[in-house]
Amino acid sequence: MNKIIRVTSEFSFEMAHVLNNYDGPCRNVHGHSYRLFVTLAGIPVNDVGNPKNGMVIDFTELKKIVLNTIINQFDHSVVVSSDFDREKLGMIKNAFGNTVVVDYQPTCENLVSDFAERLVKEIPGGIKLHNLRLFETARSYAEWFAADNEFPPTSR
Amino acid sequence: MNKIIRVTSEFSFEMAHVLNNYDGPCRNVHGHSYRLFVTLAGIPVNDVGNPKNGMVIDFTELKKIVLNTIINQFDHSVVVSSDFDREKLGMIKNAFGNTVVVDYQPTCENLVSDFAERLVKEIPGGIKLHNLRLFETARSYAEWFAADNEFPPTSR
Amino acid sequence: MNKIIRVTSEFSFEMAHVLNNYDGPCRNVHGHSYRLFVTLAGIPVNDVGNPKNGMVIDFTELKKIVLNTIINQFDHSVVVSSDFDREKLGMIKNAFGNTVVVDYQPTCENLVSDFAERLVKEIPGGIKLHNLRLFETARSYAEWFAADNEFPPTSR
Repeated sequence: MNKIIRVTSEFSFEMAHVLNNYDGPCRNVHGHSYRLFVTLAGIPVNDVGNPKNGMVIDFTELKKIVLNTIINQFDHSVVVSSDFDREKLGMIKNAFGNTVVVDYQPTCENLVSDFAERLVKEIPGGIKLHNLRLFETARSYAEWFAADNEFPPTSR
Repeated sequence: MNKIIRVTSEFSFEMAHVLNNYDGPCRNVHGHSYRLFVTLAGIPVNDVGNPKNGMVIDFTELKKIVLNTIINQFDHSVVVSSDFDREKLGMIKNAFGNTVVVDYQPTCENLVSDFAERLVKEIPGGIKLHNLRLFETARSYAEWFAADNEFPPTSR
Repeated sequence: MNKIIRVTSEFSFEMAHVLNNYDGPCRNVHGHSYRLFVTLAGIPVNDVGNPKNGMVIDFTELKKIVLNTIINQFDHSVVVSSDFDREKLGMIKNAFGNTVVVDYQPTCENLVSDFAERLVKEIPGGIKLHNLRLFETARSYAEWFAADNEFPPTSR
């Protein structure tokens, strides 16, 4: 059974964001029901005496990692770029219980990229963070793949 | 944040087709509720002054391209191969308001291949058409991937 | 149209399993509604005279292969490892109408790996078994990809 297998868990969280300077309706604070798919790759444990026999990772452990690293921080938060107007940011901080200030525009693309950076440090040795899929709406999503970024891309 | 990210939008359209000479029930005119997933890959804009900051492509622009190139032509149409019997084709053209004649058997496989050829020309520079997924029924689909076809395959 | 296209069909089956020695609730016999996605890759037939013109494989043929090779054996069965305690196995065999004994821990990872081994032998020439996705719950799944396993991995 010595094969590389990918395992995926789906998570969901409710989050508001603002797209600073965007020329569409998303420039205003608004929320989405995000869905995050986390995919790891590895060789399942092959050891009858190991309680994790047959698993790349115990789904319970994967869930714990993703909850601690991503969901517990971003669920029911409003995410704003540090470039955002200071006065408006103050108002948002007053109005929302949980404001997360990030150093990037919080588009679906940049969020999934940030989540990958956070998660990659938490995955146990011998297992690879293979890809993340982040649904922003029911019919649109962004994805980060380790394989797409193994060689540094030239900037756009 | 200088990472390659994939973005996907889902579309749907209602379409009838005929599979000429097929040895199953699909040889008769019949319809499906197709769902098309269009995936692009690129590096999100990293420029605070750009209204598209943080985006590979504005989802609004992606939708416009797919609607203009695919959906507006194929939605509520009947698609028939140019090999089809001329007399029957005439009858179909009379019976259906919107007949699209293509130079291939309109299976899910050939349709997704044709859609890729049409879309690849419309994607803005610096962004790659990564793959298309076309659901013909709720539980079956065909996919075209750029990477599968980068080197000309030998014919079957 | 001489392109490589991937085609996928979705299947579902109800199955119970036991994870021997596992340190969680799955050590008891319990069931899931599994969903299996089978993806093949090939060049669609390009021959007007062939009834399968435009197809990588007739979806009807793919369904027949997967039903015969996987679904008919595992649907409404209980799957147990041959390492399992002999006495308990006897009790399970008495209690369940259809017991499948396998030589591995029946996790989602090992099941999808086994299904790949079984299916790869049944796929017609010229077509490749590209990947399998097996949902164990509505929000978690394991995947086997041919490309991940083309070069023998070092053991864990």
